[in-house]
Order: sequence, then structure tokens, then C-alpha cells
Amino acid sequence: MPEAAPLHIAFLLFPDVTQLDLTGPAQVLSRLGNAKLDLVAKTRDPVPTDAQFPLLPTATFAEVPRTDILCIPGGFGTVAVMEDAETLAWVRRAAASATWVTSVCTGSLVLAAAGLLTGYRAACHWASREQLAFFGAEPVAGRVVFDRNRVTGGGVTAGIDFALALTAKIRGEDHAKFVQLSLEYDPAPPFDSGAPERADAATLARYRAMVEKFAPGRVDKVRAIAARLAETASDG
Amino acid sequence: MPEAAPLHIAFLLFPDVTQLDLTGPAQVLSRLGNAKLDLVAKTRDPVPTDAQFPLLPTATFAEVPRTDILCIPGGFGTVAVMEDAETLAWVRRAAASATWVTSVCTGSLVLAAAGLLTGYRAACHWASREQLAFFGAEPVAGRVVFDRNRVTGGGVTAGIDFALALTAKIRGEDHAKFVQLSLEYDPAPPFDSGAPERADAATLARYRAMVEKFAPGRVDKVRAIAARLAETASDG
Repeated sequence: MPEAAPLHIAFLLFPDVTQLDLTGPAQVLSRLGNAKLDLVAKTRDPVPTDAQFPLLPTATFAEVPRTDILCIPGGFGTVAVMEDAETLAWVRRAAASATWVTSVCTGSLVLAAAGLLTGYRAACHWASREQLAFFGAEPVAGRVVFDRNRVTGGGVTAGIDFALALTAKIRGEDHAKFVQLSLEYDPAPPFDSGAPERADAATLARYRAMVEKFAPGRVDKVRAIAARLAETASDG
Repeated sequence: MPEAAPLHIAFLLFPDVTQLDLTGPAQVLSRLGNAKLDLVAKTRDPVPTDAQFPLLPTATFAEVPRTDILCIPGGFGTVAVMEDAETLAWVRRAAASATWVTSVCTGSLVLAAAGLLTGYRAACHWASREQLAFFGAEPVAGRVVFDRNRVTGGGVTAGIDFALALTAKIRGEDHAKFVQLSLEYDPAPPFDSGAPERADAATLARYRAMVEKFAPGRVDKVRAIAARLAETASDG
């Protein structure tokens, strides 16, 4: 088979990322063939994740001025990122040249805060999905949402479905099926509790209490960020 | 709800690990509650993975003499681990005190080479599953296989199913359902190509060619390792 066109993939790495938002799709996309993958952060220092181990950046913002596939993972750390001018500036710069501008989980809120989802349909973690509307994006309840060159995944594990769908778009369905087989991606969840529509009420209540404990006032913070952005835009 | 009993979780980290074998279940198990999770390696130096970024150990073998849950991920690096006396010695020592001795993907071959699966039923990546028999383990085609305190997962993404099943066993089904909802684990693979029984012939052939390219003679090497172990055992 002919050699595939070379590609660069850049994942944004930031403190308190949900590490599987990144490591799931990175596993899939690392098998695109003829693709170089970087985890990009402000510095090369280890970055703490939500799972008690750090991830190590492979490049800094300065070292990755452009990429073909930009992917923003999510996590409780996203609120800080949405207020961080340096990170948002890199996201905008990388997105400007990227063929695909993508996210997983609440990473779509970072894209939105960078002004990159206004007027786009997008996915997000189910519990934060409606917050996309604060930024003029249209929330969609889906595992993978394509809208022009924006490709967004739902919460955490949706990153694997997202990355396989993107693989098919870029390298063809046969290649995506090969990657799926290599990862034995034939999921068999032991319970049917992965979506809010099917989780029981006690599980839903417990989830919402956990968010309020670990990220108190999150929705209000995101709403305030969106309001400030709208003001800045109307001032400009 | 009463505080859950404290637990320690140790993932073995080694060069050329398939990183999602580790990062998938680590994401799930990091949410067990009152649990400390370590990535354990020979030294604290970054460890290269199969996905173009390293993982950073949080502890060395010497620093983790015991654990409650031992988990061995897989990958092309497993063959070298199966011949590495220092790593196998740590695996045996950690397993001796562990409540749960577990693996994902070809990590079960490392457990087998450490003598920990003899007479046990176990899962493995589909393409390497039969190699368990070289070590006196019984290969089982399953995403998650429990046999006494051995819990083994199938290939790569099966680690998520494995970790949710183990979460249910340790902290109860309600807790596992909560973790599943938090990770939006409601998978929707874009293709039906995740198991060899359903992948088409061309995809299967392509997978086997890839293994032969990146891990030439793998089956023969594993068979030879098992034969040497059997000799040593009969000499002893």
C-alpha cells in the first residue's frame, strides 16, 4: 500500500486533565501511520493529572507553532485553562493551521472559550454539555460530532470512538478497522450506567454531588468566563 | 456513606508498554475512593511507551514492596519483561501480598512467566491468547476473567471493562456504576471490527503482518521462555 501522507498530531496537556481523555484517543491516533504525536504544554515539566500520576510533555507551545490535528482533552482543569491567555493563544494559533480542530469531553469548552466553536455543533461530557451554549456553540448529545473541520467527542471514554471515527475520515475505514482490531475494541461494559438517560437516580445524584465537591460553582464560573469574552468581543 | 478501606494499587511500568493497557484501567481504579495508585518501574526515569510519549513512574520497585492490587499491562515490551529476572522478582514479591493479582492484554503472559497463572483460567489479547497454555494457564476468550484472586482482561480496551468489574467486586456495584457514569462509558464503536471473529479476512491478515514486522518470531520466543522456565522448575 502507498505510504500515507505525513501528519502531526498535537494534544494540549494542562494540569488536572482527565488523563484518559488524552491517552485514549492518543493510543488510537498514534496508529494513524506516518504520524508524529506530541503532548504539548507550557513547559517540559511533568503535568499532574486527575489519576494520581503525571504526564510528561513531549514539546512546549513554542516548539509546536502548527499541527495537522489539534486535540484538546477535558477535565476539572479546563476552567483554569479557559482563563489562561497564554494557553488560549496557543490553541488559537495551532487551530489556525490545523486540518482538524478537535476535542474530547470538556475540552470542547476550551475550544469554545478560544472562540473556535461559535456557530458549530459540538459534543462534550454529558454533565457539562449545555455550557457550550454560553459560547454560541450548539450542544449535541453524541459520542462523536463532526461539523466542518471541528470534531468533538463526548465524555472521557468517547475519546476512543472519536479517534476511530477520525481515523476512518483521514486514513479510510479499512485502516480504522485494523486499528480497532489491534486494540480489541469490542467493548462489553459490565453495567448499563454510562449515560445519564440510563443511570439510576441515586447514581446521578452522587455524580452531581461529586462535581460540586471537587469543582464548586463550576457552571457559574464557566458562564462568567463566557460573559467576559462576549464583553471583550463587543468592545473590540 | 462510611469511608472505604484504604487500598494501594500498583501498575507495573516497562519499556514499550501499550500505554492504554495501563492508562484505561488506571483511570477507572483511580476512582475507587481512598486508594493510592502508583506506576512502578525499575527507576524513576521516564519509560517509553508504544504511543510516542513516555510515562513517568511514581515509584520504584524498592519503594513498593507490597500492594493490594497488582496490575500488569501488556504490549510488545512484554517479551523482554518475561526474560528480566529483576522485574519478575518484583512481580512475584508484590503478588505474594496482593489481594488481587491482575493483568490487561499480554500482561497476563508476564504473570504467567512469573509462575503466577499456572492452573488458572486467564484472558489475554486475542492474538496472543493461546500462548498462555505454554505456561500451564488456561486461555479464555473473555473481556474479563476472574479465577480466585487472579483477574485478567483481554486486549487493550478490555482494561476498562476489567477495571469496572474489579471496582464492583471491591467497592460494590453502585460505586462501579457511579464511576462508569463519570467516565461516560457508553461505548459506540464506529465499526464492528474489534474481535477476530468479526473482523474481515483482510483486516486480520494486515494485523498479523504488522505483528510479524514489529515483533518478529514473537510466538517462538514466548514458547522458548516457557520451555526454559519448565526446565528450571524441573531442575530445582
